[in-house]
Amino acid sequence: MQSVRVAVAGHAYDVLIGSGLIGEPQWLLPVLAAPRVAVVTNDVVAPLYLERVVAPLRAADVQVAVAVLPDGEAHKDLATLDPAYATMLEARCDRATTVIALGGGVVGDMAGFVAATYMRGVPLLQIPTTLLAQVDSSVGGKTGVNHPLGKNMIGAFHQPVRVLADTSTLGTLPDRELAAGLAEVIKHGLIRDLAFFEWLEANMERLVARDPEALAHAIRRSVGIKAEIVARDPLEQGERALLNLGHTFGHAIEAGLGFGTWLHGEAVGAGTVMAAELSAALGHLGAADVARVRSLIRRAGLPDVGPALGPARYRALMSVDKKARAGVPRFILLERLGAAYIEPAAPESALESVLSRAIGAHAPTSAEHR
Amino acid sequence: MQSVRVAVAGHAYDVLIGSGLIGEPQWLLPVLAAPRVAVVTNDVVAPLYLERVVAPLRAADVQVAVAVLPDGEAHKDLATLDPAYATMLEARCDRATTVIALGGGVVGDMAGFVAATYMRGVPLLQIPTTLLAQVDSSVGGKTGVNHPLGKNMIGAFHQPVRVLADTSTLGTLPDRELAAGLAEVIKHGLIRDLAFFEWLEANMERLVARDPEALAHAIRRSVGIKAEIVARDPLEQGERALLNLGHTFGHAIEAGLGFGTWLHGEAVGAGTVMAAELSAALGHLGAADVARVRSLIRRAGLPDVGPALGPARYRALMSVDKKARAGVPRFILLERLGAAYIEPAAPESALESVLSRAIGAHAPTSAEHR
Repeated sequence: MQSVRVAVAGHAYDVLIGSGLIGEPQWLLPVLAAPRVAVVTNDVVAPLYLERVVAPLRAADVQVAVAVLPDGEAHKDLATLDPAYATMLEARCDRATTVIALGGGVVGDMAGFVAATYMRGVPLLQIPTTLLAQVDSSVGGKTGVNHPLGKNMIGAFHQPVRVLADTSTLGTLPDRELAAGLAEVIKHGLIRDLAFFEWLEANMERLVARDPEALAHAIRRSVGIKAEIVARDPLEQGERALLNLGHTFGHAIEAGLGFGTWLHGEAVGAGTVMAAELSAALGHLGAADVARVRSLIRRAGLPDVGPALGPARYRALMSVDKKARAGVPRFILLERLGAAYIEPAAPESALESVLSRAIGAHAPTSAEHR
Repeated sequence: MQSVRVAVAGHAYDVLIGSGLIGEPQWLLPVLAAPRVAVVTNDVVAPLYLERVVAPLRAADVQVAVAVLPDGEAHKDLATLDPAYATMLEARCDRATTVIALGGGVVGDMAGFVAATYMRGVPLLQIPTTLLAQVDSSVGGKTGVNHPLGKNMIGAFHQPVRVLADTSTLGTLPDRELAAGLAEVIKHGLIRDLAFFEWLEANMERLVARDPEALAHAIRRSVGIKAEIVARDPLEQGERALLNLGHTFGHAIEAGLGFGTWLHGEAVGAGTVMAAELSAALGHLGAADVARVRSLIRRAGLPDVGPALGPARYRALMSVDKKARAGVPRFILLERLGAAYIEPAAPESALESVLSRAIGAHAPTSAEHR
């Protein structure tokens, strides 16, 4: 077991990384405020891992309530939260009850929002079961749901008391979901750590083949980079926005196709290539740099071209991005590989050239996508 | 214009109290993060005050979006928030847009929750137009909505950047709503300030007759008491719970009859008498003290007896109160008039005697209720 500390002022917590953690109650029990938990999960993850988590808790006399949500980004909305609140109220969960998010990024965001808002806030423990959630979404306290008019538009910052990243859960992950997680791994290298990006270039085939040692290294380094940034800027008032590399384009792809058509990580994969192209159009990256980004994204099994929504639709969708100010989208771009910056006003012509190259299919089927 | 400072660490703000404030943009403009606002109000308040607030803002080149919600506690739920989020997204409100809550306690709680959760949090400015909201709910950062299984069960703490309590708006307030606000005024005296309670005993008829000077004094003193307590305990981890005198019984009344049947303040009025009775059953108050509480509640035009829900139903409803721990309701009781405390475990027999005296009507029609 390895651990990474996320030193958010007043809310510091550990991310524990290892194989088999979720069945070992010693990692959960010490951080419960009271012997009461509400597990929020979904109908795909529950049959796989729910009993493994709750049996040892019940054996330790912890009261356990369970809410099982429908799987998928298409259900990530306010209405879907209602049964979770109802389950907790019926089970008489109080302010000392810890919400346990058991599942991928969607479950983590939704369970996190329930924890942020149930009785104005209860403790949250994250048990991410996808690579994307382990390297990214379970860390940092972002919670929320989508609105038909925009992704993650309703939410709250609510830091967990602990994160358990159990690498053994990655064995059941579909290939598409593994690739989606790798998009965020690549992002972490690109924004902050050229050496890690180069390690990924040297080891991508090991990651795709699910080599446990390679995956553990990728998770630890990704969480380490994210933890550093989040600790300095927990509420995304500045630097934290760098973690959104590829996300301004990516969110437009997700919303434009309808949430759930492409996985979040797939949209971020194509969006990262678009961000590299825009960085090149502004003179920061050379063609060889863009080719390296594109190649690594493809080798991860991700789409490397945005779908053909048309430039006008992309622009409309990006103008309501959370990072936009007065309708002007802000982009996270690359000064060079391993160093990102916030671009408040990309020139129209450069943006147009990138958007006009988004002529991919509406289904995510890059050459290497399984 | 008078002002009271609410010195919450990191989020200090002023409550401005005076006649005509809402039509004077100088009280709003300096605290806007950007020249963009989203006014959230309801269909009763909008025809009365919306133009008075927004015309001077538009004249000052502030972009104004408006969401008008249906009036009343019965609509205080998650689903009703959707049009407010949609309005803000359609108007491209960004993270620098200030949400203005224009209305009573329900609007303030709902608009506050929208501000707490829109893009994970935007600034909030409260313009309370009822006595209850001016003396209580607009101050202190509690926001949220009801769940069919419990009042205010979904919510967040989100402090406003300013509160404008315009006493001229009280002229249009229905008598029932005025009385409902007086319940919270009486509460503030009972928990912390015997001299203020005695001033209320001497001046209740002036308040009911809407004497402007008396109302301004009652608002200022109520806000002052609440501000002191909230500044020391913004997240209700201790002392702040004292502000819930009468609310454990009151919430049970509201939920038991169906939200909106009795106004919140009416339920708190009867609940405050029940709390005084329970305090007497525990030996803290004498019969004369209870009689003084009951008399003042009646003179304010409030019901002084809880409805006949039956003791079992009261108990069931109170066990899911947010203050409950492991299903055991906690009560805020009186050590003496002017001094409240938290009672974690009221004896069964004392509670039973109080609940068995709740034999009032299901409609709030005390003798003096107009």
